[in-house]
Amino acid sequence: MEKPVVRSLLEANDAGAAELRALFAERGIAVLNFIGSPGAGKTALLEKTFRDLGGEFSMAVIEGDPQTDNDARRIAAAGGRAVQVNTGGGCHLDAALVRRALGGLDLKGLDLLFIENVGNLVCPVEFDCGEDCKVALLSVTEGDDKPEKYPLLFNLASVMVLNKIDLLPHVDFSLERAERFARRLNGELAVLPLSCRNGEGLDGWYDFLRRVRAKKAERAAVGR
Amino acid sequence: MEKPVVRSLLEANDAGAAELRALFAERGIAVLNFIGSPGAGKTALLEKTFRDLGGEFSMAVIEGDPQTDNDARRIAAAGGRAVQVNTGGGCHLDAALVRRALGGLDLKGLDLLFIENVGNLVCPVEFDCGEDCKVALLSVTEGDDKPEKYPLLFNLASVMVLNKIDLLPHVDFSLERAERFARRLNGELAVLPLSCRNGEGLDGWYDFLRRVRAKKAERAAVGR
Repeated sequence: MEKPVVRSLLEANDAGAAELRALFAERGIAVLNFIGSPGAGKTALLEKTFRDLGGEFSMAVIEGDPQTDNDARRIAAAGGRAVQVNTGGGCHLDAALVRRALGGLDLKGLDLLFIENVGNLVCPVEFDCGEDCKVALLSVTEGDDKPEKYPLLFNLASVMVLNKIDLLPHVDFSLERAERFARRLNGELAVLPLSCRNGEGLDGWYDFLRRVRAKKAERAAVGR
Repeated sequence: MEKPVVRSLLEANDAGAAELRALFAERGIAVLNFIGSPGAGKTALLEKTFRDLGGEFSMAVIEGDPQTDNDARRIAAAGGRAVQVNTGGGCHLDAALVRRALGGLDLKGLDLLFIENVGNLVCPVEFDCGEDCKVALLSVTEGDDKPEKYPLLFNLASVMVLNKIDLLPHVDFSLERAERFARRLNGELAVLPLSCRNGEGLDGWYDFLRRVRAKKAERAAVGR
């Protein structure tokens, strides 16, 4: 009984995502959809990115949370532009919510748009929001078995960020094991271990963003 | 469009949960539904509980995961009985899945049944599985703002377990702040800071389980 309903919701969402993708392509905006558990460090990574790349790119964030505008306020404090979407208990963002949030953003000249999804490794994965790539964000405190247990995300993501590596001495987590599980699901997956706390590995993340942005700008130029 | 469908699914689930609750009441089995993020330490707390209380109570677990039977194997290695339910990508357990899992368990003489839900702070909260209480399991690496951001869970839970307190010196987490946010949502909430890694605070958890179990056994005796 549940299946057909879910399928028709996903089909409607895919149509909305295709419209968003066309809009972003026309404007050359690179869009990244951040998916990770609550507390994995999605907002922390965005705060760092705004502080360190704020002079290089024009960036904005759509913040998805069941409640509060805490995250949008954190981004604003880091000098970034953010629109908060409260899902009112809903477990993921979708194309319609992203479309509505765009009403609160000036897209002119924007290089990078981040979508920070609701903290959840399952539901957000199936709802395309017109992004160029999904960023799977896993912290080392969550256990190295997560790619195996939540395979769809790691299968569809372009990059796996392994955050909080400053805590590796205090937890049982093998970077090698997490990477091996994830690569078995997705041979193309980029893997970026880093720490938002001490800054280790952030350069790799910034280079990844530069590549995503350059590729999108190049395609937009060809399209003109 | 989505709302009425969701409502009818929840109503069907509530009916299934009521049947489960009657079955558990008749047999005097105390049932706890564990809800927390991926990697918060739900399985680790169950492993400890089986090792430490295995001689005191007859216990079993229903393990919910999108994929793998890793957690059921971990429980078995700790000397416990576990039935694994794979949701095949689904984001929560529900009464029908729990009912099906019971087919794999001998309920005779069982004192405590744990339901380890899919790692997710949102979706599992709305699906009653016939439990006596929901256990909200939050680890200190996830941030002290989580009760505020995911209020429904903390509103409906009977206890908030704050796990991984051995990592407190390495993260920005205020136990007082987490407790204050959670208590604002739910004045009755028990709060149990503990560490599955070094064993600190586990006694408080075991006392909580003894109280839940004693209350259920007492009610079942009155009912006979």
